[in-house]
Amino acid sequence: MEFSIAQIATMLGGEVKGDGTAKINMLAKIQDAKKGQIAFLSNPKYEQFIYTTQASAVIVKKDFQGKKNINSSLILVDDPYNSFTLLLEEYHKLISFQKSGIEEPSYLGEKSVIGQNIYRGAFSYIGSNVRIGDNVKIYPHVYVGDNVVIGNNTILHANVKLYADTHIGNNCVIHAGAVIGSDGFGFAPQEDKTYKTIPQLGNVLIEDNVTIGANSVIDCATMFGDSTIIRKGVKMDNLIQIAHNVEIGKNTVIAAQTGISGSTKIGENCVLAGQVGIAGHLVIANNTSIGAQAGISKSIKDEGERLIGYPAVDIKDYFKSYAVFKQLPDLNTRLRQLEERMSRSGVSEN
Amino acid sequence: MEFSIAQIATMLGGEVKGDGTAKINMLAKIQDAKKGQIAFLSNPKYEQFIYTTQASAVIVKKDFQGKKNINSSLILVDDPYNSFTLLLEEYHKLISFQKSGIEEPSYLGEKSVIGQNIYRGAFSYIGSNVRIGDNVKIYPHVYVGDNVVIGNNTILHANVKLYADTHIGNNCVIHAGAVIGSDGFGFAPQEDKTYKTIPQLGNVLIEDNVTIGANSVIDCATMFGDSTIIRKGVKMDNLIQIAHNVEIGKNTVIAAQTGISGSTKIGENCVLAGQVGIAGHLVIANNTSIGAQAGISKSIKDEGERLIGYPAVDIKDYFKSYAVFKQLPDLNTRLRQLEERMSRSGVSEN
Amino acid sequence: MEFSIAQIATMLGGEVKGDGTAKINMLAKIQDAKKGQIAFLSNPKYEQFIYTTQASAVIVKKDFQGKKNINSSLILVDDPYNSFTLLLEEYHKLISFQKSGIEEPSYLGEKSVIGQNIYRGAFSYIGSNVRIGDNVKIYPHVYVGDNVVIGNNTILHANVKLYADTHIGNNCVIHAGAVIGSDGFGFAPQEDKTYKTIPQLGNVLIEDNVTIGANSVIDCATMFGDSTIIRKGVKMDNLIQIAHNVEIGKNTVIAAQTGISGSTKIGENCVLAGQVGIAGHLVIANNTSIGAQAGISKSIKDEGERLIGYPAVDIKDYFKSYAVFKQLPDLNTRLRQLEERMSRSGVSEN
Repeated sequence: MEFSIAQIATMLGGEVKGDGTAKINMLAKIQDAKKGQIAFLSNPKYEQFIYTTQASAVIVKKDFQGKKNINSSLILVDDPYNSFTLLLEEYHKLISFQKSGIEEPSYLGEKSVIGQNIYRGAFSYIGSNVRIGDNVKIYPHVYVGDNVVIGNNTILHANVKLYADTHIGNNCVIHAGAVIGSDGFGFAPQEDKTYKTIPQLGNVLIEDNVTIGANSVIDCATMFGDSTIIRKGVKMDNLIQIAHNVEIGKNTVIAAQTGISGSTKIGENCVLAGQVGIAGHLVIANNTSIGAQAGISKSIKDEGERLIGYPAVDIKDYFKSYAVFKQLPDLNTRLRQLEERMSRSGVSEN
Repeated sequence: MEFSIAQIATMLGGEVKGDGTAKINMLAKIQDAKKGQIAFLSNPKYEQFIYTTQASAVIVKKDFQGKKNINSSLILVDDPYNSFTLLLEEYHKLISFQKSGIEEPSYLGEKSVIGQNIYRGAFSYIGSNVRIGDNVKIYPHVYVGDNVVIGNNTILHANVKLYADTHIGNNCVIHAGAVIGSDGFGFAPQEDKTYKTIPQLGNVLIEDNVTIGANSVIDCATMFGDSTIIRKGVKMDNLIQIAHNVEIGKNTVIAAQTGISGSTKIGENCVLAGQVGIAGHLVIANNTSIGAQAGISKSIKDEGERLIGYPAVDIKDYFKSYAVFKQLPDLNTRLRQLEERMSRSGVSEN
Repeated sequence: MEFSIAQIATMLGGEVKGDGTAKINMLAKIQDAKKGQIAFLSNPKYEQFIYTTQASAVIVKKDFQGKKNINSSLILVDDPYNSFTLLLEEYHKLISFQKSGIEEPSYLGEKSVIGQNIYRGAFSYIGSNVRIGDNVKIYPHVYVGDNVVIGNNTILHANVKLYADTHIGNNCVIHAGAVIGSDGFGFAPQEDKTYKTIPQLGNVLIEDNVTIGANSVIDCATMFGDSTIIRKGVKMDNLIQIAHNVEIGKNTVIAAQTGISGSTKIGENCVLAGQVGIAGHLVIANNTSIGAQAGISKSIKDEGERLIGYPAVDIKDYFKSYAVFKQLPDLNTRLRQLEERMSRSGVSEN
């Protein structure tokens, strides 16, 4: 990646002030930037750095007036922060999608159909009857079981494991070590106190634009034809547990180490903080917000609730109760003193 | 897998009504089933579907009397649900055990002895001096360290990691990404506030019929000759942490994201819910039941207790206390009002 | 590994009593030891075993006087326990460092520079522009992304995943399945309720003498030039989540399944127990001790505090309050009785 300052200005719809021919090969913060790099100035408290930076170019607001001499070329734009973010995104696409081709050894089973412009890293494994779309990146040590279907532009980072029959949509990112489609935790107790394994024959269905964090696990549904479902736009962090037959609604966000038990349905646009636990067979309404470490043991029917505690209650009520909890020893003492005063005063106990 | 309806009826000890020659290649729910598939009808509320299903065959109760025309062949049995479950199990065995042979490249160290009818997936790694029984399935990217011993019929899913010296029994299932035998967390504090690593030289011993969930971790014991032990029939879910020198008793079930600290012994037939934490060096009695997110800081001596909370108490007591916890601000107000009434009444404070 | 008893005595600065020529090939506990093995006797309650052990040699205190016949050779030292620990450590180094050479197939990208005396296991993957020091052990299925830097004597166990640009110091141990450098969890909410992915362009920096547990995850920093930082001597257990831009201070110890949210700075010499959760953007003072399952929602300014609960409070205060929590139903009853007595006594309510 190497563009001239003038090319970048054109990309951003901005105007160059100074030399536009120098080459840029990296983005950096204004206080750290070196020659060949581009930075931005948005917050006035960083203005001091524009007079000393080594950056070859700095993106500034259209009406910026320097108070001292500036060595860098400037690119004048309406909103420097937005412009820089745009550059970051373009750069990120470049590096995310620079991998392509097939590294050997890699394994490809029978009757699998692979799209255009694929990266298949060394030691990646693709089973039989697999269908994979275009522009998919399959990093080293990825395992794709038989009959898996993957859409376009999806990235499977190193060592992602997809059990047989998993379906994944377009534009998904699955981070390293995530396991999709492992057996649901289903065991039938027997009379001799052992457990018999209930065969887990469903699959996992992940829709478009979903992100799954590193080392998270999503179990398959129990029955043939059923799916554990992650809807469009869901964003899941690391080390999350999603049990069999769970459904997560559109655009719901789940922080790290949260666990959701079997057959629970989470609504759309919910926000689950870290280390939350949700019991099985519940229905959680849309727009529910659940605080860190909360334990949810009942369905949530009204949209927009904010909950915390175990079992979870309204977040404001929880903190009011917890404030008194911290004074409980004192409360106990006050109560005992009252009992003694009452007895001394001669009020009988019954 | 393809059987005729008549063959399936014989397998189930049932009787065919209609054409027994058509071939069945899949199981399905009655409302979804297509040609070539078999379904069942047990719950009367699904009876409507038997008149419209595309299933080639439906398993029904011996005395079932259809009220309208039925296109599917029927298999008459005593208990349709049980019969279908039996078919599911047979099917599951077929697909679980269909993998066999050696995919290349795979790695096999010196002096290792491998049984009959093994599946060794591509990129699987087996170290030196390993002993593996018959009918074992080793999926791609599995790592089996030196001196490991594995019994018959055990399945290691993709990317399972067995450190050196691990012992695993017969009929176990270890899910993708699980790590068995990593170092226990042992560090000796030094005068300069650094920590010195205590060598971890024991191993992990897993008995027969154990299931370990995806991305779970079981650490090895500290000393030579000692083992972290998972007894017969234990079922463990995903993302569980088992520390060094722990022992889990027979037929105990542990839900996802639970953690058990070093040297703790869990009894037989216990049920630990999700996200439970258990401190180190404890002994938990047989038949103990521990609720989700509970924290156990003391040994449990009496069998059959049900516990919750942090530190955990009896589950009924916890919920009674928690009911009052939710009213604490109100309780505090009532107490203050009493104090004021008492003062107004002229009862002295001492 | 095989040394004579005399060689081991010399190594320990001890003196042989009996035959010094027999060969030792393993360490064992005195009650379990067999021929060819060495044990130790420190605690007097184990003295009985020295008269029956099969050990070829036993390490004893200089002034030890046997009361019966002893078959083993003795090595007389000042402190048998310390001497045995020393042997354990030497043995552990031997087995840890015995692996060397390159197993095939393994993958090495362009322009990568690898030090002396390296072990590269089969199916290990090293990307481009990687720099690796001397005596590094890279087990099978390890993934080392582009531009990664690794110091001397570091061990990457099976299936460790290092995203591009990760830096790791000297003498580190990373356990199986750990993921270092995955994307931070950063998403910008859009007007249509979807989330846009914020590119994650920083890296992870791990200093010297750090241990990372199995299946733990450390996310990269968000911005170019920024790092998620794990300082010298930090010891982390299994299944831990470290979010983007976190910094963990020197010699801090973190137990299993704990999670630390984005941009939080943990001080030096802290001890975090298991399943702790810490919110984002906090600063935790040096020498802070946090109890199991605690939830930290505010910065801790004073050094040396001990905290527990959610939100966490001083550990003594928590247990005092919790003691009353357990009596809350009783407290509630006592309060109601007082109210009734008061009313009967004729004291008016206002």
